[in-house]
Amino acid sequence: MTDQIRRGLDGVLVAESELSRIDGDAGELSYRGYPIEELAAGATFEEVLYLLWTGSLPTRSELDSFTGELRSLRSIDMAVVETLERLAQRDEAPIAALRTGVSMLSAGDTERGLVPTDSGTIQRTGRRLAAKIPTVLAAYERLRQGERPVDPSDELGHAANFLYMLTGTEPDAVAAETFDTALTLHADHGLNASTFTAITVASTHADLYSVVTAGVGALSGPLHGGANQDVMETLLEVDESGDDPVEWTRSALDDGRRIPGWGHRVYSVTDPRAAILEDRSEALARSTGETKWCEYTRAIEGYLTEEAGLVEKGIAPNVDFYSGSVYYQLGIPVDLYTPIFAMSRVGGWVAHVDEYLADNRLIRPRSRYVGPDSRPYVPIDDRSPDA
Amino acid sequence: MTDQIRRGLDGVLVAESELSRIDGDAGELSYRGYPIEELAAGATFEEVLYLLWTGSLPTRSELDSFTGELRSLRSIDMAVVETLERLAQRDEAPIAALRTGVSMLSAGDTERGLVPTDSGTIQRTGRRLAAKIPTVLAAYERLRQGERPVDPSDELGHAANFLYMLTGTEPDAVAAETFDTALTLHADHGLNASTFTAITVASTHADLYSVVTAGVGALSGPLHGGANQDVMETLLEVDESGDDPVEWTRSALDDGRRIPGWGHRVYSVTDPRAAILEDRSEALARSTGETKWCEYTRAIEGYLTEEAGLVEKGIAPNVDFYSGSVYYQLGIPVDLYTPIFAMSRVGGWVAHVDEYLADNRLIRPRSRYVGPDSRPYVPIDDRSPDA
Repeated sequence: MTDQIRRGLDGVLVAESELSRIDGDAGELSYRGYPIEELAAGATFEEVLYLLWTGSLPTRSELDSFTGELRSLRSIDMAVVETLERLAQRDEAPIAALRTGVSMLSAGDTERGLVPTDSGTIQRTGRRLAAKIPTVLAAYERLRQGERPVDPSDELGHAANFLYMLTGTEPDAVAAETFDTALTLHADHGLNASTFTAITVASTHADLYSVVTAGVGALSGPLHGGANQDVMETLLEVDESGDDPVEWTRSALDDGRRIPGWGHRVYSVTDPRAAILEDRSEALARSTGETKWCEYTRAIEGYLTEEAGLVEKGIAPNVDFYSGSVYYQLGIPVDLYTPIFAMSRVGGWVAHVDEYLADNRLIRPRSRYVGPDSRPYVPIDDRSPDA
Repeated sequence: MTDQIRRGLDGVLVAESELSRIDGDAGELSYRGYPIEELAAGATFEEVLYLLWTGSLPTRSELDSFTGELRSLRSIDMAVVETLERLAQRDEAPIAALRTGVSMLSAGDTERGLVPTDSGTIQRTGRRLAAKIPTVLAAYERLRQGERPVDPSDELGHAANFLYMLTGTEPDAVAAETFDTALTLHADHGLNASTFTAITVASTHADLYSVVTAGVGALSGPLHGGANQDVMETLLEVDESGDDPVEWTRSALDDGRRIPGWGHRVYSVTDPRAAILEDRSEALARSTGETKWCEYTRAIEGYLTEEAGLVEKGIAPNVDFYSGSVYYQLGIPVDLYTPIFAMSRVGGWVAHVDEYLADNRLIRPRSRYVGPDSRPYVPIDDRSPDA
């Protein structure tokens, strides 16, 4: 035992993993050996889930069976919808409504009696959660807009079905593909805070509903999943200011503000996911004719890189810097960005938990006691007001 | 950075703390310097919460103001009750219903707009959660028994009020004091898995509802908070078998079974909380005249200590070994034991989060990649079925 305090567990290795490989200095990310660029270009999100959960890319018939099962699991219990309706009446944040909705999903699981830590149970529950999370989220968005939820489609893929449930209209191919790519890019990323939360909860042999509910909670934090929302809010502020984005950024830095979407614990160069989303943002801008968000983002990136010299200091654009404007161009409300991250990252949570539980060890670190020395209890009427 | 894998983070120091001090070899526990034995004997659970959260024992007027605020915060939104009713119809486990109920409490918080990581907000939200968790849990138990929830009392203390909401009848003094002691004993215990989960979630700057919901989920695991339920189920099995408890235990060990409530990651001798609860169990037995649970427990402890030699091997009774039969004697249903643990441990979760966030560092450890080398993506129709 070393007596050094490992703040934030920086650099502490807690497990071996066959899932994502991150080279923060080279700016490389792969899932089970496949470079993220190739998966983003070639695979659907369902293929990526299959890959993360089983270790191999599916054959056509394996994928058909997998996507068929996911589609069959999309609908949610009316009791969940009723709770979401009450949360909408109270103007609950979508990420908090998702946390509650996910927690409720355990009540409808007829397999609740099974050992939750068996790999087969984890994978079945994982498919159930991945299939239902988009339905919970889209239902909540509809309800808070005063509309009835749209039933999930039996025909559409995971990404397209979500956009369909959100709007009631099937998305065009560019939108569906872009959203599918965004889901692929966010599916796994080592032992980030929410994935590590998931593993810690699972290490007690809690069930996967507790695990994923906790993951959603961890993701809600602005220092983790909440950052993509901050980026878009910044871009909207730039737009409303009417200022040139470079001038706006210069002035914001002068005021001591931090530009969200820059810097990452793991990457010292540009996050490879940011580069892929930059291309998708440009494709969307061409498709819709609305180019300003892509332009603002690039202008700010150029200024921070070339004039402010952030990249030289190891502070480079991360995935959030581009995902915000991509979602905005897809017409998704800003406070849904973090919940969408959960729709994708559930893939990584489930995969890491399945892997960790194969050789589980309860996670229980220590703290160093620096409080008062032992002292006798003083009965309440003998206490001095200043003690 | 060392490249050793720290499984379960055994012995890894992640923070300094002024809260609980545990000496696992001496079997000692204190909260902010006060020995647990003295707090259990002298302080109410409300005093312990105040101590954990502020650093000092309250004066009479401080305690009056603190308990007054907690009492004023006990009631819960009707929307939460309606959701609990639907969960009861689906026979949801109480710990899962509590997880959902706690998650819903954020929707009724009018202070949601405040910075969730400010110490004042943490403490206010902590008081709110500590006050409402018993109400959520008791309401759920009533609903699943087909009865209406009992409104919280404005007069009773925290422990007595919970027993009152559970049954509709004010508990006698022995029951109320015993339950109060049990709450005090479970309030904090270093960086156990649920407290560490709470800190990890809070390190993302997520709000306290996400933190406590995640804590409840972590506590639900049989390797953590679920163990007190396992102990009582074992005692019930002994009772139903009609065998002598020592014979039953000998035969269970021969069959390779592990006796729950023995052994602890931190203690190599008897958990000091177990010794206190043993006394309370005996007092309850005297008070009710039902002595068998206390006798079974002692007989099993004697056998495991003297004949099986577990204590010599550093495997000794932990807090769960006695809490199960204490709760049983209080008439509390077995599957409420873990949720009751949450009622108490919320004190530790809030205190640790408040302390950690004063000098926050996002918790993000690493894993060692041991998966496939980089490999090119293969389009789906080119994949071999055996790949």
